[in-house]
Amino acid sequence: MEPAIILVRPQLGMNIGMVARAMANFGLSDLRLVAPRDGWPNPDAGPPAAGADHVLDGARTFGTVHEALADCSLTFATAFRPRDVMKPVISPRQAMQDIRTQGLKAGILFGPERSGLLTADLISVQTIITIPASPDFASLNLAQAVLVLAYEWFGAEAVPPVSPAREPAPHGELQGLLGHLFAALDQAGYFHPPHRTAATQRTLAGIMSAARFTSDEVRTLRGVIRALARTRG
Amino acid sequence: MEPAIILVRPQLGMNIGMVARAMANFGLSDLRLVAPRDGWPNPDAGPPAAGADHVLDGARTFGTVHEALADCSLTFATAFRPRDVMKPVISPRQAMQDIRTQGLKAGILFGPERSGLLTADLISVQTIITIPASPDFASLNLAQAVLVLAYEWFGAEAVPPVSPAREPAPHGELQGLLGHLFAALDQAGYFHPPHRTAATQRTLAGIMSAARFTSDEVRTLRGVIRALARTRG
Repeated sequence: MEPAIILVRPQLGMNIGMVARAMANFGLSDLRLVAPRDGWPNPDAGPPAAGADHVLDGARTFGTVHEALADCSLTFATAFRPRDVMKPVISPRQAMQDIRTQGLKAGILFGPERSGLLTADLISVQTIITIPASPDFASLNLAQAVLVLAYEWFGAEAVPPVSPAREPAPHGELQGLLGHLFAALDQAGYFHPPHRTAATQRTLAGIMSAARFTSDEVRTLRGVIRALARTRG
Repeated sequence: MEPAIILVRPQLGMNIGMVARAMANFGLSDLRLVAPRDGWPNPDAGPPAAGADHVLDGARTFGTVHEALADCSLTFATAFRPRDVMKPVISPRQAMQDIRTQGLKAGILFGPERSGLLTADLISVQTIITIPASPDFASLNLAQAVLVLAYEWFGAEAVPPVSPAREPAPHGELQGLLGHLFAALDQAGYFHPPHRTAATQRTLAGIMSAARFTSDEVRTLRGVIRALARTRG
């Protein structure tokens, strides 16, 4: 069940739009706004959402954090090294794994742009999420913080990258290429002195096999060898 | 060795500023710009950098992708499901692990806001990085794409979250609390019928131990019990 992204007292419509885009990038759509400063809907949110209109259109507003969290069995707040709050502090990855594993509705609070969440907001939730970041410069933009959580929700490894269409040529084709190359080089007087020939050929064979050329590339390279050999001849 | 973040033909100064902030959030500082549309420096980059001035000040500009990559032994480009390019495609996490493990200078290309990288740019690098994202809405904002890479560079698990200051009270304190609670409830006639007393106490003990109260919390709760018991007496 997808977690709700809950922006608490967000200030700029632009940031709400960027949050919507970041959510849509990773398949999230349950956006909730607690007391947005400039009201809702906010026309400034549209352009930066870059087409994530379904997220903005579906956004719901609430008067308080408690109302926004009412249907959530798992409650989280994002904060950087909260000092006065005695709560478990976990990473975005751990939080998203928890939510996925437990299969319960979760709500995640994000504070206003400048100030972050109040201690009162942090006290209301079960768990604090801290995004690991540079201690010297730990304040993430609101949409960037949402992005990290959404990215971890989607599962950084969940969808394997598109499988490389690159398929190395069968060994025989590589051997054909090497045979062709050695013959052309021999013709050109490259193997000198003769007793070094085997070692030089081994070096070339190593280079060519490590490159994992595809069949197309092998054909191209044989054309190159042919052309060069022709020039000399 | 930290990878270079290389923005190829970036359009908006604002986005360059947001990239600088995202880099600084995760300890990166080697920013390179290839043919930025509006020249460089660009005053629009300042405000969204939100204090990441050292990254902007250190940014270098280049005329071509090849010049920007010249000192990089590992070369990457970010792209979503590139079709015509026969290259290995890996995830941000894999790429950052590679860079960390190999300890070599790496450069990562990011395309312009609207169009992404050209096929010619993709062909110049060794490896493509694809950020796993929703197939319906896969286009990340430029700074968001940089953020994901920077986040993975920093190591999502590298810095453990601040250790929870929350330390469950020693078992004896919890037992003291339970004894106190049971005595007060007994006084209040809560345990009825009597043959259910042991089962009810087990239930309460289960609830109280799962909560992992701290010593402070145990003290507070004993005050609560004392106060409630006083009211009744």
